Amino acid sequence: MPLSMYDSYITSHWFSADAKAVWDDLATIQAWLDVEAALAQAQADVGLIPADAAVAITASADVSLLDLDKLAEDIAFAQHPFVPVLKQIESHCGDRAAGYLHWGATTQNIFDTGAALQMRKTHALILTALTQVETQVAALARQHSATVQPGRTHGQHALPTTFGYKALGWLEELRRSRQRLEDRIDGSFVACMGGAIGTFAAMNGQGRRVEALMAEKLGLRPAVVPLRSSFDRASDYISSLTILAGSAEKVAQDVVFLQRTELGELEESFHMGKVGSSTMAQKRNPSMSLTLISLCRMLRSRAALAVETMVRMDEGDSSTTNIADITLREVAIIAVSIVEMLAKLTAGLTVHADAMRRNLEISNGLIASEAVMMQLSDQLGRHHAHHMLYEAAQRSVAEGIPFLTLIRDSLTASGHPEIAESVTIDPAAYLGEVESLISDLTSPTA
Amino acid sequence: MPLSMYDSYITSHWFSADAKAVWDDLATIQAWLDVEAALAQAQADVGLIPADAAVAITASADVSLLDLDKLAEDIAFAQHPFVPVLKQIESHCGDRAAGYLHWGATTQNIFDTGAALQMRKTHALILTALTQVETQVAALARQHSATVQPGRTHGQHALPTTFGYKALGWLEELRRSRQRLEDRIDGSFVACMGGAIGTFAAMNGQGRRVEALMAEKLGLRPAVVPLRSSFDRASDYISSLTILAGSAEKVAQDVVFLQRTELGELEESFHMGKVGSSTMAQKRNPSMSLTLISLCRMLRSRAALAVETMVRMDEGDSSTTNIADITLREVAIIAVSIVEMLAKLTAGLTVHADAMRRNLEISNGLIASEAVMMQLSDQLGRHHAHHMLYEAAQRSVAEGIPFLTLIRDSLTASGHPEIAESVTIDPAAYLGEVESLISDLTSPTA
Amino acid sequence: MPLSMYDSYITSHWFSADAKAVWDDLATIQAWLDVEAALAQAQADVGLIPADAAVAITASADVSLLDLDKLAEDIAFAQHPFVPVLKQIESHCGDRAAGYLHWGATTQNIFDTGAALQMRKTHALILTALTQVETQVAALARQHSATVQPGRTHGQHALPTTFGYKALGWLEELRRSRQRLEDRIDGSFVACMGGAIGTFAAMNGQGRRVEALMAEKLGLRPAVVPLRSSFDRASDYISSLTILAGSAEKVAQDVVFLQRTELGELEESFHMGKVGSSTMAQKRNPSMSLTLISLCRMLRSRAALAVETMVRMDEGDSSTTNIADITLREVAIIAVSIVEMLAKLTAGLTVHADAMRRNLEISNGLIASEAVMMQLSDQLGRHHAHHMLYEAAQRSVAEGIPFLTLIRDSLTASGHPEIAESVTIDPAAYLGEVESLISDLTSPTA
Amino acid sequence: MPLSMYDSYITSHWFSADAKAVWDDLATIQAWLDVEAALAQAQADVGLIPADAAVAITASADVSLLDLDKLAEDIAFAQHPFVPVLKQIESHCGDRAAGYLHWGATTQNIFDTGAALQMRKTHALILTALTQVETQVAALARQHSATVQPGRTHGQHALPTTFGYKALGWLEELRRSRQRLEDRIDGSFVACMGGAIGTFAAMNGQGRRVEALMAEKLGLRPAVVPLRSSFDRASDYISSLTILAGSAEKVAQDVVFLQRTELGELEESFHMGKVGSSTMAQKRNPSMSLTLISLCRMLRSRAALAVETMVRMDEGDSSTTNIADITLREVAIIAVSIVEMLAKLTAGLTVHADAMRRNLEISNGLIASEAVMMQLSDQLGRHHAHHMLYEAAQRSVAEGIPFLTLIRDSLTASGHPEIAESVTIDPAAYLGEVESLISDLTSPTA
Repeated sequence: MPLSMYDSYITSHWFSADAKAVWDDLATIQAWLDVEAALAQAQADVGLIPADAAVAITASADVSLLDLDKLAEDIAFAQHPFVPVLKQIESHCGDRAAGYLHWGATTQNIFDTGAALQMRKTHALILTALTQVETQVAALARQHSATVQPGRTHGQHALPTTFGYKALGWLEELRRSRQRLEDRIDGSFVACMGGAIGTFAAMNGQGRRVEALMAEKLGLRPAVVPLRSSFDRASDYISSLTILAGSAEKVAQDVVFLQRTELGELEESFHMGKVGSSTMAQKRNPSMSLTLISLCRMLRSRAALAVETMVRMDEGDSSTTNIADITLREVAIIAVSIVEMLAKLTAGLTVHADAMRRNLEISNGLIASEAVMMQLSDQLGRHHAHHMLYEAAQRSVAEGIPFLTLIRDSLTASGHPEIAESVTIDPAAYLGEVESLISDLTSPTA
Repeated sequence: MPLSMYDSYITSHWFSADAKAVWDDLATIQAWLDVEAALAQAQADVGLIPADAAVAITASADVSLLDLDKLAEDIAFAQHPFVPVLKQIESHCGDRAAGYLHWGATTQNIFDTGAALQMRKTHALILTALTQVETQVAALARQHSATVQPGRTHGQHALPTTFGYKALGWLEELRRSRQRLEDRIDGSFVACMGGAIGTFAAMNGQGRRVEALMAEKLGLRPAVVPLRSSFDRASDYISSLTILAGSAEKVAQDVVFLQRTELGELEESFHMGKVGSSTMAQKRNPSMSLTLISLCRMLRSRAALAVETMVRMDEGDSSTTNIADITLREVAIIAVSIVEMLAKLTAGLTVHADAMRRNLEISNGLIASEAVMMQLSDQLGRHHAHHMLYEAAQRSVAEGIPFLTLIRDSLTASGHPEIAESVTIDPAAYLGEVESLISDLTSPTA
Repeated sequence: MPLSMYDSYITSHWFSADAKAVWDDLATIQAWLDVEAALAQAQADVGLIPADAAVAITASADVSLLDLDKLAEDIAFAQHPFVPVLKQIESHCGDRAAGYLHWGATTQNIFDTGAALQMRKTHALILTALTQVETQVAALARQHSATVQPGRTHGQHALPTTFGYKALGWLEELRRSRQRLEDRIDGSFVACMGGAIGTFAAMNGQGRRVEALMAEKLGLRPAVVPLRSSFDRASDYISSLTILAGSAEKVAQDVVFLQRTELGELEESFHMGKVGSSTMAQKRNPSMSLTLISLCRMLRSRAALAVETMVRMDEGDSSTTNIADITLREVAIIAVSIVEMLAKLTAGLTVHADAMRRNLEISNGLIASEAVMMQLSDQLGRHHAHHMLYEAAQRSVAEGIPFLTLIRDSLTASGHPEIAESVTIDPAAYLGEVESLISDLTSPTA
Repeated sequence: MPLSMYDSYITSHWFSADAKAVWDDLATIQAWLDVEAALAQAQADVGLIPADAAVAITASADVSLLDLDKLAEDIAFAQHPFVPVLKQIESHCGDRAAGYLHWGATTQNIFDTGAALQMRKTHALILTALTQVETQVAALARQHSATVQPGRTHGQHALPTTFGYKALGWLEELRRSRQRLEDRIDGSFVACMGGAIGTFAAMNGQGRRVEALMAEKLGLRPAVVPLRSSFDRASDYISSLTILAGSAEKVAQDVVFLQRTELGELEESFHMGKVGSSTMAQKRNPSMSLTLISLCRMLRSRAALAVETMVRMDEGDSSTTNIADITLREVAIIAVSIVEMLAKLTAGLTVHADAMRRNLEISNGLIASEAVMMQLSDQLGRHHAHHMLYEAAQRSVAEGIPFLTLIRDSLTASGHPEIAESVTIDPAAYLGEVESLISDLTSPTA
């Protein structure tokens, strides 16, 4: 009976099927066996173990040969997560090869290197989805380059902007995240084969060569100093996922806010049959964005937990590696799910330009206060203009009189009737360098 | 030159002056000395030290006698936070009494018991401010018992409610928080006097009695089993502050949202001279609420850090108690500041009932969908009614036709013209038991 | 294929089978249906729905009637976690009763109340295991009341203590935790039936009565003000679990440290076939304690995540309740698993009194420095004695000369030959009030 | 009266004086004014403001001209952290120039760019101290390349290693941290000058040029898309500090453990006058390491808080930037303090090679079990050897018989007397590739 959020009947659809396939027990154990096989091959290459042993080990390094229920039982009895796996492989590869299986290795070498293989696959899934997101968000930016919208700070209308520029902001963060992940994947997840405490003690002086060869076979870099107690490398990639999740949550939160009933500027894709509430028939909730926020917060919490395991006792410490093993798996699945959900969200987003325009007008002209200040600054000085507009704005709020009227009154009263006449309020004309930035940064060659 | 947020020229006004006075170095060292004095008195009471020694120690237990600059220097040299304090007191109380100072105690006994005294003062400050908040929020609840407002879930209009009911929700959480703090203060901060490792080894068999007597003099309960490695008691109160901060942040977030330009339902107090922006003269930001959110998040982060120090090595572990000592101080100051700021916020809150009413109308009637469903349920069944209303609601959104029109069309088309006629939409009539709850729970005897 | 730590072949044995049975999808959905049934019965009791509808609903409120695969599919399509459950129940209870199912309720009412039922079962599991732990730890305390051991602070020998006193320290924390949980369970998990936004809008004025009746049927207290946006109550119990996990981690860390090869004072239960390492045949690791530490840290991380969801938008916010629903489940399972593992750990703990005694001797007498200081204090004054012993101790460390020799030399040299002669070093005689505390606090009537 | 840990009489010596000088109010406000000056100059360069205004503004951009007490008062009244600063500068630079001060800028532009300047200085302090640490740790690694020590996993002796290799592990992590910081400083802290919402609205089309010119004057890169709501860049550097703190904490924890009374393998620098306890004269605590652990945990907590502020409302959100501003300051000071304390710790570390050697012997030969397994593996197969040694090891533990005796008995009994004779136990001969790795990675050209 399902229990975890990944496979519960209620929530399994939140999670990337591809990512789950990379990290389920079958795939995890297979990754371990792939490492055992590559290790044996590398050791045969340097003459540390017989070539036929490596062949037999490779042939038996197949999860489909294992009796998984017996495995679970044996693991519980031995209180060791891997020796029972080895025992089953030994029974398949013949007694002679069995004697050379796992030669010079320790369990955590296998787990860490296996996880590195799985993280490379995870990385590929993230990049694929992220590329789709970037393409879609770049298209939104270009398409809405001039779709005027209120810019808001501290929850209040500030200056006009365009929805395209907001999308450009999302895009820039996501691009930087992608760059970070690409730069870090190779250095963060490496092949570790230093044995019990990372000294290559049981490799007869060939350990560094074996590690390098094995790494090459697996498409990884070697750890070189393969200490089990060092987790800074993986922590770097995990921290980068935290940052990616921060950007994704920002996007989702923007959508939730802009879809609020009073604003109606954005809307998540809707289809008949999507239900907002068991009791309120009218509800069209931004469900995907809200779920995305949940996932981002869960990722951040788990990523912090994983990174904290950096602080490890001595040369090895299962109180921390237990957590790291489990949590890396969770971080990976949630990270892919986030990016895939972001891809769906940005693909289906409806932009209500009319609502954006309408909202721009609701402040009685106040959103143009800086624009007016800059018009007046050359003649009055920026600081005197700010002062005058501050008083007009507060009066406009208090008395409901249009801002422009009050500005003109004030300018006339203070002996500047000609300036009063020339003052204008046009939010759509006060967009700064928004359009050129969008154009420059989303051009095909950007 | 100020450095920390508590005394920076830029941010010191965020923090309770009273709480800072309870926790500055002067007050902290005085609390330590109060504990030394009470200890000496208790020991004299049971005949463990001479009565005149206790008198001399008590007379010298005065922070104003200390040379604080020399103290800082000596602490840095000795790498010990308290022995230099003792040395200065010894030089004041005469050599004979000096020999009985700190008898049977260890530094952490003094620090923990001193902090308990400071936490009681902190608790009193919190309660005073919290009482004010509760009175104000109860008044808001009563006053706006019938001030109709859209209730929102998932960012979308859901059902009508009243602002008074929202205030009642704030009130209930704050009341429960107060009850938790009151229930826990005594058990959370106790007098500890077990000596080096909590065994009362140096008390000649009188330790438990001394601890109990000293506790009584200080207005605290005795630890009884005074292990320095146990922090679960303090953690309980600290966790309760985390919950209080969660409630305060919820209130602040409600204000920020309801003050948004598009909503305008609430507004923080404003005075001429309050500035929203260096460049946008019109800005009226909910600055207090935003600062309150910042403080709540800082408190939660520090409270978690403090509680984590529960896990301590052996019988004593300064890697954790260093953190606990510093962080308890910060948690205390921030907690009081939060409640005092909440008092200011709720005292000055303006409620725009007209905007609430206006917002209630903007959904073309959709906010009444459940009300209609309940009208129809007896005749059609709740589930059939939900289905019909779902279709009407989605069409209303898509085509902009008033909800009521579509409902009536649909009922007529499906052969229920008489029901169609009787259907009404009146959000203000669908407020459930809001008013009776407010009345019952905010009555003078509630 | 298993994926999560709860059911992975590798780690499922870490987790309480009983707790998993309380929280798997089957049990969770059944808890929801139990709430629907109780709701219908309560509504029939007050005449809000027909009695026969309540009977039919109750009969259909059985998870075994559901098609779970279809459910998962429908949930993914509707993007709603509960409406597809209702639809299946409707198809079982007959069209008339279907019209009265879920009357006046909203999904989160069902989820929160269902979770409250599951939390009561969780609480019972925790208490059962905790009672066993307390009994075992109390027995350890009594049995080792006089088993002398070095007390340690900051990683260094401090004063002598007994293992029984360490166990008493564990016991006291666990007892306080149990008391907290017992005090809080009823107030933390309540029956909520306020409907869409907590106003009882669809209950025809009978909402409070219905909630109270339903609560009674389910063995819960009513929420009274049933706001979905309030999570402070549950947060209180969750925070108490954080504290319990802190205590459990402290115990586990003590075992790990005291089992270290150089100390050997404690040892986890061992059986032939328990494997420490895939490559080091000799390893006897404190695996259970290390796993316990992992679980405690995972619990704390998840508990913090859950409590953070207190800060909720408006009247309802699935970005937070998604997390709360999932995380409460995880917190519950991990909490029970921690206490059950602690029961196993403390049941099987071997105490090596000889090693404790041996370690007490290794400091060349330094561990008795405070004992000596107290012997000398009456004659020299505590502060002068501390000064003299400080110098002797540092010389003993630097030159390897026994502490007692140096103390006697120093006393003689400073003109106190008679004191020099009387000075003794006997760690086992310097145990303070350890034995009476153990005896008083673990007596059958304690 | 001091209040915060940075300037408390008790704890101020924990914190880097240089870092505090970079971040106190004086330095912070001066950094803001430096940005205002550079902005004015850049705007004069492109003709946006008159050249003489830029000259006057630059001359007035001097914190020593400000009345700081008045500033604090005005900030509290205006509830704005920067407008009162501007007002004071305006009063110094003459009315004409005042009109061009802060032209097109918003407060957060100034704060963020000022903080970038301070972070560059922070970075320089970190690198200087880190270089010293690396040099010292590399020397330790080389010097103790062959100083044999027990390697430990899960708290138990595992295989022999050398202290030099442990130091190499520290070194490798620190080197990677340094590389990360160097790679990221430029991209993480940039010059932002987009105005109110990042659109360059008030720059008359010259904004991008002004930002680039200003950045160049300040030695920073321009933001290009200067959104105030993007914090991913800074978060990257902050996350890297989290990782550095993890490595530092690992080092400190290693020292604390290896200095434990039973082990005595390492020792922090000690000087007469350093006090371990107010009551136990003998205490030589690893105080610096314990304080270092405290600092590392405080840094990680604050860094997480800062990174969480990535999720910002709309175009600007002071509820998050309040936290980011304050916390970046704290993170910076604590980070420098950590590295400087690490420099002191590693400079003064005493290595007790004799104790390391002695501890290696205490397991009755068991630490050599893998070495023996590898000796036997060619003849018996690795798996059969593991099995035989497992039984011998457990018997050795249970009965106290030397491991080698039992191995020889077992081999003889199973018909391998010749192997039995050849088996040897010499931990110092089983160090794998430790020495070549140290030599290769710490050579002058490494």
